[in-house]
Amino acid sequence: MSFSLTVLGSSSALPTSKRFPTAQVLNVQERFFLIDCGEGTQIQIRRFKLPLSRIHHIFISHLHGDHVFGLFGLLSSMNLLGRKADLTIHAHAEMEETIRYFKKFFGTELLYPIVFKPFPRKRHSLIYEDKKVTVETIPLRHRIPTVGFVFREKKQPLNIRKDKVTKLNIPYRDIIKIKAGSDYISTDGNIYSNKELTLPEVRPRSYAYITDTAYYEKNAIMISNVDIMYHEATFLDRDHKLAKLTGHSTALQAARMADKSHARKLLIGHFSSRYKDVSAFVDEAKSVFENTVAVEDGDVFQVRKTRVSES
Amino acid sequence: MSFSLTVLGSSSALPTSKRFPTAQVLNVQERFFLIDCGEGTQIQIRRFKLPLSRIHHIFISHLHGDHVFGLFGLLSSMNLLGRKADLTIHAHAEMEETIRYFKKFFGTELLYPIVFKPFPRKRHSLIYEDKKVTVETIPLRHRIPTVGFVFREKKQPLNIRKDKVTKLNIPYRDIIKIKAGSDYISTDGNIYSNKELTLPEVRPRSYAYITDTAYYEKNAIMISNVDIMYHEATFLDRDHKLAKLTGHSTALQAARMADKSHARKLLIGHFSSRYKDVSAFVDEAKSVFENTVAVEDGDVFQVRKTRVSES
Repeated sequence: MSFSLTVLGSSSALPTSKRFPTAQVLNVQERFFLIDCGEGTQIQIRRFKLPLSRIHHIFISHLHGDHVFGLFGLLSSMNLLGRKADLTIHAHAEMEETIRYFKKFFGTELLYPIVFKPFPRKRHSLIYEDKKVTVETIPLRHRIPTVGFVFREKKQPLNIRKDKVTKLNIPYRDIIKIKAGSDYISTDGNIYSNKELTLPEVRPRSYAYITDTAYYEKNAIMISNVDIMYHEATFLDRDHKLAKLTGHSTALQAARMADKSHARKLLIGHFSSRYKDVSAFVDEAKSVFENTVAVEDGDVFQVRKTRVSES
Repeated sequence: MSFSLTVLGSSSALPTSKRFPTAQVLNVQERFFLIDCGEGTQIQIRRFKLPLSRIHHIFISHLHGDHVFGLFGLLSSMNLLGRKADLTIHAHAEMEETIRYFKKFFGTELLYPIVFKPFPRKRHSLIYEDKKVTVETIPLRHRIPTVGFVFREKKQPLNIRKDKVTKLNIPYRDIIKIKAGSDYISTDGNIYSNKELTLPEVRPRSYAYITDTAYYEKNAIMISNVDIMYHEATFLDRDHKLAKLTGHSTALQAARMADKSHARKLLIGHFSSRYKDVSAFVDEAKSVFENTVAVEDGDVFQVRKTRVSES
């Protein structure tokens, strides 16, 4: 029942010897979602021991090089490793042309299918859904079309208390109903409330990935109540004009977004290499939103499974 | 008077957490030549503290992704760092189209000029020359057009012995002649041989970069007498059929090429990730050519300045 985020790269456009360009892997119950794919992503995946073959979906926020230049090497390596399974790339429509060009130019015949799922540029959209999780896009404010991604676990059926099933000898057809929320009436006419028959419900977990973007407060409502928000903080607030000009955010603005959207925890990254020290970003963000962490490559953030009564 | 090679990446097509794809920097008297540019090259350049801004020439052996996918990020970063100086890319002619596509697609307006110098596919050619160094291509035998590069220092003018100039009071116009190799006749008619007036000549140093290629013995004569030869050793000789099929070499063949061409030292790399242990490559190569080293990313190999009498 994992819900964990691994940061593969946390630099802004200019990588350093310690920070690779942007990429992350989110593991939601053993679904491994790759989010952006900056140069060196495949190397970081190996370094941090993530299972390359189990990545079936890649989400690309926008087509700037520092979020996408690792894709060509990654696709080639999957091929060399004998991949047969589909790989779905969720991106702006133009991504498909780039991949087509890359395959043609480098004579790379990929032996596995790539499925393109272009998403709308300007509309908050549900772009992925399975039994356990949904993924939505949040249109952002950058120099080119860009989206954020919100990953949310779905509400799961209630877990029934096994001791009650045994004690009351509840038949199978009634168990199904109880899991869906019904009370139970035994053959002798006693009524047992659903609450006493089931465990408190598992709280769905959620993660929002918000980069690259200028501050745009109206997005807060779409990102509401996530457990973890990663928000870019390219600049310090003393450079807020530069942030606006380049379509980026300051640490203070990242914190405001976490605050307005009622996130539980804020991760900041994508720091401009013009600043020597990351602690100033954290100090600035904490002045508005206390639970802030500046990420490093290789950091892993987990959200543990809780039931509603515990949380 | 440096002559030093830094290995940035030494994997074959599939990088590992320890070995990046192929790239090297050769420093010849403070000229920094980048040779191939696999994914992550810019990160390794920073990690190993090489001066990105002082790279003015890039040599690309062939257009397979593991030798070239780092180029787009590198060009972008040079731009972000405010580069103004020309950058010359020596590559097969098709490289120019890829760079053009990359600039168009990613909307990257580069603020420095890129000069393309396509080289002949099939002919041993002199492709670069300045006061201190020449670079030649060696056509190799791979699945697509591929060349090796041989870097050779030029023979330098003789260094005159200052004690003799002072003692014999040699006029300036005669010094020029002595540096070019003449003897000296003093005003009183004494003849001083060039040898007694000058230091022994500085031995020009040389480096050959030979990857990717199947074994092709006839190339040995063009690579003759280098101080260091880097030669790919993708396979062990027990897989020599696979080597031939894929256009690669075995460690034994790399050693044979070093031996036939009278190299002084052999570096091997580009190991297939199918083998767990690099020592088997070294053992195999040493059975033919003793002075063999298996490279690791970050290794630096220097050739010191010597005069002919010392070497």
